[in-house]
Amino acid sequence: MTFTRTQEFMAELLGTMVLILFGCGVVAMVVLFANTNPTIPGQIVNGGYTNITLGWGFAVLMGIFISGTISGAHLNPAVTIGLAATGRFPWRKVAHYIAAQLIGAFIGAAIVFAVYHAKWIQFDPGLASTAGVFSTFPAVPGFWPGFIDQVVGTALLMALILAIGDKLNNPLGANWGGLAVAFLVMAIGMSFGGMHGYAINPARDLGPRLFSALAGFQNTGFQNGVWLVPVLGPIVGAVIGAFVYDLGIGRTLNRAHLAAQGEQGVDPAYNLETR
Amino acid sequence: MTFTRTQEFMAELLGTMVLILFGCGVVAMVVLFANTNPTIPGQIVNGGYTNITLGWGFAVLMGIFISGTISGAHLNPAVTIGLAATGRFPWRKVAHYIAAQLIGAFIGAAIVFAVYHAKWIQFDPGLASTAGVFSTFPAVPGFWPGFIDQVVGTALLMALILAIGDKLNNPLGANWGGLAVAFLVMAIGMSFGGMHGYAINPARDLGPRLFSALAGFQNTGFQNGVWLVPVLGPIVGAVIGAFVYDLGIGRTLNRAHLAAQGEQGVDPAYNLETR
Amino acid sequence: MTFTRTQEFMAELLGTMVLILFGCGVVAMVVLFANTNPTIPGQIVNGGYTNITLGWGFAVLMGIFISGTISGAHLNPAVTIGLAATGRFPWRKVAHYIAAQLIGAFIGAAIVFAVYHAKWIQFDPGLASTAGVFSTFPAVPGFWPGFIDQVVGTALLMALILAIGDKLNNPLGANWGGLAVAFLVMAIGMSFGGMHGYAINPARDLGPRLFSALAGFQNTGFQNGVWLVPVLGPIVGAVIGAFVYDLGIGRTLNRAHLAAQGEQGVDPAYNLETR
Amino acid sequence: MTFTRTQEFMAELLGTMVLILFGCGVVAMVVLFANTNPTIPGQIVNGGYTNITLGWGFAVLMGIFISGTISGAHLNPAVTIGLAATGRFPWRKVAHYIAAQLIGAFIGAAIVFAVYHAKWIQFDPGLASTAGVFSTFPAVPGFWPGFIDQVVGTALLMALILAIGDKLNNPLGANWGGLAVAFLVMAIGMSFGGMHGYAINPARDLGPRLFSALAGFQNTGFQNGVWLVPVLGPIVGAVIGAFVYDLGIGRTLNRAHLAAQGEQGVDPAYNLETR
Repeated sequence: MTFTRTQEFMAELLGTMVLILFGCGVVAMVVLFANTNPTIPGQIVNGGYTNITLGWGFAVLMGIFISGTISGAHLNPAVTIGLAATGRFPWRKVAHYIAAQLIGAFIGAAIVFAVYHAKWIQFDPGLASTAGVFSTFPAVPGFWPGFIDQVVGTALLMALILAIGDKLNNPLGANWGGLAVAFLVMAIGMSFGGMHGYAINPARDLGPRLFSALAGFQNTGFQNGVWLVPVLGPIVGAVIGAFVYDLGIGRTLNRAHLAAQGEQGVDPAYNLETR
Repeated sequence: MTFTRTQEFMAELLGTMVLILFGCGVVAMVVLFANTNPTIPGQIVNGGYTNITLGWGFAVLMGIFISGTISGAHLNPAVTIGLAATGRFPWRKVAHYIAAQLIGAFIGAAIVFAVYHAKWIQFDPGLASTAGVFSTFPAVPGFWPGFIDQVVGTALLMALILAIGDKLNNPLGANWGGLAVAFLVMAIGMSFGGMHGYAINPARDLGPRLFSALAGFQNTGFQNGVWLVPVLGPIVGAVIGAFVYDLGIGRTLNRAHLAAQGEQGVDPAYNLETR
Repeated sequence: MTFTRTQEFMAELLGTMVLILFGCGVVAMVVLFANTNPTIPGQIVNGGYTNITLGWGFAVLMGIFISGTISGAHLNPAVTIGLAATGRFPWRKVAHYIAAQLIGAFIGAAIVFAVYHAKWIQFDPGLASTAGVFSTFPAVPGFWPGFIDQVVGTALLMALILAIGDKLNNPLGANWGGLAVAFLVMAIGMSFGGMHGYAINPARDLGPRLFSALAGFQNTGFQNGVWLVPVLGPIVGAVIGAFVYDLGIGRTLNRAHLAAQGEQGVDPAYNLETR
Repeated sequence: MTFTRTQEFMAELLGTMVLILFGCGVVAMVVLFANTNPTIPGQIVNGGYTNITLGWGFAVLMGIFISGTISGAHLNPAVTIGLAATGRFPWRKVAHYIAAQLIGAFIGAAIVFAVYHAKWIQFDPGLASTAGVFSTFPAVPGFWPGFIDQVVGTALLMALILAIGDKLNNPLGANWGGLAVAFLVMAIGMSFGGMHGYAINPARDLGPRLFSALAGFQNTGFQNGVWLVPVLGPIVGAVIGAFVYDLGIGRTLNRAHLAAQGEQGVDPAYNLETR
């Protein structure tokens, strides 16, 4: 099956919207219901950081279910760029995909705000302290701690996505590769969520941050340059992760595969699907 | 294999009963054992909201295991209506299915009450504050906050069920589609469980609420119209979710599939199973 | 492949031993390390009830991995009896299997005690309050509350095991039926773990309880008849669950399957595998 | 496909590096962010012991995704030795693999320290109390409590890895064996993580411990012999676990398989893949 650019745009937009609906949704619940009383039914709604990490993983899974076949479910400009940088995705489509991702993330954030609005104006009437529901902030001041964290986290994301999708490495049957990516995102949240909230995705961070600024939130991170960290770090990390995978693992599998068929060298098309 | 209406009725009833047994069961545990001491063996029984969200997800999975083949395991009037509204399920069977779902949910709630009765009369002797074990209540007063929440949550449920079951989108092998739906319900609980307890299912809410009123619980939500929110919201949401999926994704896949076979237009039977 | 009775005995013994190693192990951790300080590395070992429910589910999965092919991995006298009562397992093997299960559970409990002994004599030097690591106790005094709970919990266990293993219902590919049973056990723990610790298995409860009495624990439940509840309740429940599944679902599938082949009636061998 | 020793070395190094990145990463988060305020967005990063156990399980899964096809993803000297001791892996490759595992673990620990450095020097400026992020320590003083724990935990690890990988036992389709191993590691953490932090892997413990000593951490366990426990215990345990599996289960399946083909005895090559 082939799809038009408009169809790919719509799928990537809807997939990223679903990602943000579930992702920012779970943060909204943990933040806005932090003070509720667990012994009163109807108010037991805070699952803490365990739920945040599980919730973002499921959010990715649901985005993949929606858009996987039509757009490949990148849902992340860093992934799109990492795939393009290693020859797995055409550069001419990159801006197109990033636009869809940013718009989808913005709309998803707006719907989350609409759903939780009645509670929000109780918990934080001045919208002064809860912009973090939408976008990520550093645990320690300064550019470099968050940047290093984002580079490492996104390098792991990209390298593992390539490993999971590599038909010569671990071909996952029964179409459970999307679930494997969900587990990967849970793992990154559990292990690299502390320093900068594991944005690891410029659209996931910038789209909702733009919404939060337009909706009147204070301290959105635009005043002090915080917004740059989860935009630049993931792009650098994804490119590094993609090349490390290719040099350390991908080319080895590719060479061995060709050798098993009596050929030599490396197949320029590589052995990896663009998912 | 084909089944009679009575056999479908029985399967849908048993499936929804199992859903409510596990679902209301986990809420009963978190609510009724909220004060137990975690250092005394035999009393460590409160897993908090993380367990509630995991438990309802597994509840759906178990309902699907029971009734999947015979009735398709809708387990939810909103899903039944959403499938009917998009031509995937015959309207003539809808009332039939909804009756089975409501009766199954009612019986499940009664069994949960029987199991926990000895503890219940210790924790809440007047049945004054624990109707929320059976049905959902708003976090913020008023009709609209809960209604918007239920529309969005059920739209996500319906759209993702169609995506998961769409044989042109992500055909999940090894029969793990039911597990994918369980993850979906976990995700909705984690991300959209705050405003109105993520009923997202009129039978799941109304059946046990009827039981709670008959069993003598106070504050059951029938006095103030709360019961209407998780009945109307999910139906509206499921219809919206089904049409959004079809317009944004389903028709695109259908057209591309037909085009790949040299045909044009959209197959009126759509590409989606009714599971 | 066929196996001798000794080989089946050894597999069932080892499988149940592994079940208890992981199962009583996770309770030991939550109970014995309840007071540890989460900010000191090496002492962060209490995962609460969420871990208990996940841990027992994984325990079942590991027992199935060990013994599944050779003995069918019943790991539970109630399951063995439920299978026999509905014609799926020969009665002449039942005592044989139960003996293996009890011995395996006893050995597993002894190893857990050996592993945690150094900590145990710090936490509860008189072995006065921690018999609950090994066996289950009622949340509310009396025979009937726990009995009803055990009947319902084990009926769900048995009915769902039959549904998961029913090759006409939801044939799970890729051999993930064992994982489905693990999710089932997690679900029962989350939803029906409060009233009597979800023994749902006479060997899981009686084997370790015998060990705890021999090891000198006080309050083991032998003095006051508590031990009978998780022995009788699960057996009654498993038989009920098996017949409910057959009458409500299994026979329907069997009849429809035969009818699709042009035959009538119910196949006396049923359509269900023994696990 | 065949691979050179250098290619296997690189894959095993990268796989173990990824294991430690995720594994020590999740401990870093729970330890270093123990005091953060869950109501302030951006600081909700402590998932407690549940996240530690889930995180190490996912860490193993990611290491398997990276290196599974090229090196077999042992990621653990005890596993390598257990496989060699039962004839499943050539002894001449053992030192080679262990070197790769230790170097990968060391590098992984260094990257975790770099990512969390800015937070670390706030939380524990003298590096006096947080060496436990990198390596394991006993809950009770003395050699034997930890040693027994490590023997039992690693015996379970090894026996279950053989069961999962045994093509005559539970052949898991769709390549989900790696996920089964991840669940196994989660289970060991939940059930046997208390006495010595479930190292169950000499490289996972010694590699990061060497890094922590070089980086200037105090109380690294080298002064008092603690470092020996998670080196010796896992090796002893893995060999025991491998032989127990073979004697109790593996040979039985092997004999039955040969008998079904009309042959007798035990196939010296066994029925187990080295994965």
